Amino acid sequence: MSLGNVKAFVFDVFGTVVDWRGGVAREAAPFLQRYGAAGARPEAFADAWRSRYVPAMRKVSGGERPFVRLDVLHRENLLDVLPEFGIDPNDVPAEAIDELNLAWHRLDPWPDSIEGLRRLKTRYIIAPLSNGNIRLMVDMAKRAGLPWDAILGAEIAQIYKPDPRAYLRTADVLMMKPEEVCLVAAHNDDLAAARKCGLRTAFVARPYERGPGQAVDLKAESNWDVVANDMNELADAVHA
Amino acid sequence: MSLGNVKAFVFDVFGTVVDWRGGVAREAAPFLQRYGAAGARPEAFADAWRSRYVPAMRKVSGGERPFVRLDVLHRENLLDVLPEFGIDPNDVPAEAIDELNLAWHRLDPWPDSIEGLRRLKTRYIIAPLSNGNIRLMVDMAKRAGLPWDAILGAEIAQIYKPDPRAYLRTADVLMMKPEEVCLVAAHNDDLAAARKCGLRTAFVARPYERGPGQAVDLKAESNWDVVANDMNELADAVHA
Repeated sequence: MSLGNVKAFVFDVFGTVVDWRGGVAREAAPFLQRYGAAGARPEAFADAWRSRYVPAMRKVSGGERPFVRLDVLHRENLLDVLPEFGIDPNDVPAEAIDELNLAWHRLDPWPDSIEGLRRLKTRYIIAPLSNGNIRLMVDMAKRAGLPWDAILGAEIAQIYKPDPRAYLRTADVLMMKPEEVCLVAAHNDDLAAARKCGLRTAFVARPYERGPGQAVDLKAESNWDVVANDMNELADAVHA
Repeated sequence: MSLGNVKAFVFDVFGTVVDWRGGVAREAAPFLQRYGAAGARPEAFADAWRSRYVPAMRKVSGGERPFVRLDVLHRENLLDVLPEFGIDPNDVPAEAIDELNLAWHRLDPWPDSIEGLRRLKTRYIIAPLSNGNIRLMVDMAKRAGLPWDAILGAEIAQIYKPDPRAYLRTADVLMMKPEEVCLVAAHNDDLAAARKCGLRTAFVARPYERGPGQAVDLKAESNWDVVANDMNELADAVHA
C-alpha cells in the first residue's frame, strides 16, 4: 500500500494511541471507593463519563458556546456524571475533582503504540490531531514516552473534530496540502470526516477500546488508504 | 539559584538554541556563487537578511498587516535583500528562492544545546517560544534532534514577540501561571518583555551569535533569575 506523497501522520489519540477506558477506570477506582460509590464498576464510570464527551463538544462546534479546552469539558462532564453513581459533587473537595479530571492526562498507550510511532517518526512528521488540549497531550506524552514531533489538534484549530476546520487547519499549520497528511484513527467517523477534507486515511483497529462488548468500529467500514491491526502494521504498510 | 515553582522552560530559538548566522551563511554560499554574487561574504548576506526580521514583524505587531507566519516574512525579506548583493530576484527561479528560504529550517544547534535540553526535559516541560512558525520548528527539531515536548510560540499566539500576548498565550496554553514559566533567551530585550508579563527569566550568553564583532547582548543587563554561559550551566542551576 503506497500513500503517495504523504509527509505527515496525524493521530486520533483517545482510543487510537492510548487506552482511555482502562486508564480512567484505574484512576476512578480509589475515588469511587473513597466518596461512597465503592460498589460501582470503575469501567462503567469511565463509560458514563466518556459518553458525555461528544454531546459536550457538539455545543462548541454548533456555536452554542465559544471554544473551551477539553479539560474544561471533562470537568463539567465529571460533575454531571457523579450523581449517577450516587455521589453529590458538593461532598467532594474541588482538589479531588481536579485530580480525577487529570486521569485523562495519565492514560497508557496500547502495547504497540510507542514502537509504531518511533518507526513512523523516522520517515514522517508525527503529531496528535486530537480533541485533547495541548497540556493534556504534553502531560500524556511525557509520562508515556510518546515521541511526537509537535502537538497539534483542536486547541490550535480552536475547533473540535469532526469540524472540517480541525483537519484543514492542521494541514495548514504543517504547510502541507491535505493529501500530504494522513489521519490515523480507530474510528470510522473520524476518518470519514478527514477524507472529506482531502486527507489520506489509516484505520488502526482497536476492538477492545470500549471493553469486551464493543459494538462499533470493530473493523474498517470504508476503503481507507491503509487498514492495520496495530501501529506496527501501519509502519510496515508505509515502509517506516 | 532556585526558580521556585517553575514547571516549564520555553525558549527563544534563533541565536539562543541554534546558530542562525552560521547556518544561513552555509546555505547562502552556493546560492550566491550560482546567481552572480560569488564575491559576496555569506555571513554578510546572513546579517543583511536577518536585519530585516524585526522591522517585518513590527508591521504585524503594529497592526499594519494581519499575522503571517515567519516563512512568509523570511521570503519577502529575501527578495528584498538580493538586489543589495547585485542579484535581480527575477533572474532566480522561484524554486531556488524557496529552497534558500528553507535555510532557516536547517540551522544547527550550539554544541551544548541538545544535552542541556535533554537534561531540562527530564524535570520540566520544554518548548520553543519562538517567532518561527510551527513547521519551521518541527523541521529544525527533526534534523537537529531537539527534544521538544511541544512546539509553542508565535504561530499559536498569532502574534510575534515581544508583544505581551505571545508570552501570555504560551502560559495559557500550558495551563500555568506566568511565574510557572521561564523564558530562556540570549537577548535581554526578549527577557525584559517576558518579565513584564510575569514570566521567570534565564539568560544564556551567546556572544558569537552575531559573529566575532558582536556588540549587543554580550552579557546579562538585568538581574535575570538565572544567568548562564550555556544550556548545561542552566540545567545545573535548576538541578536538572
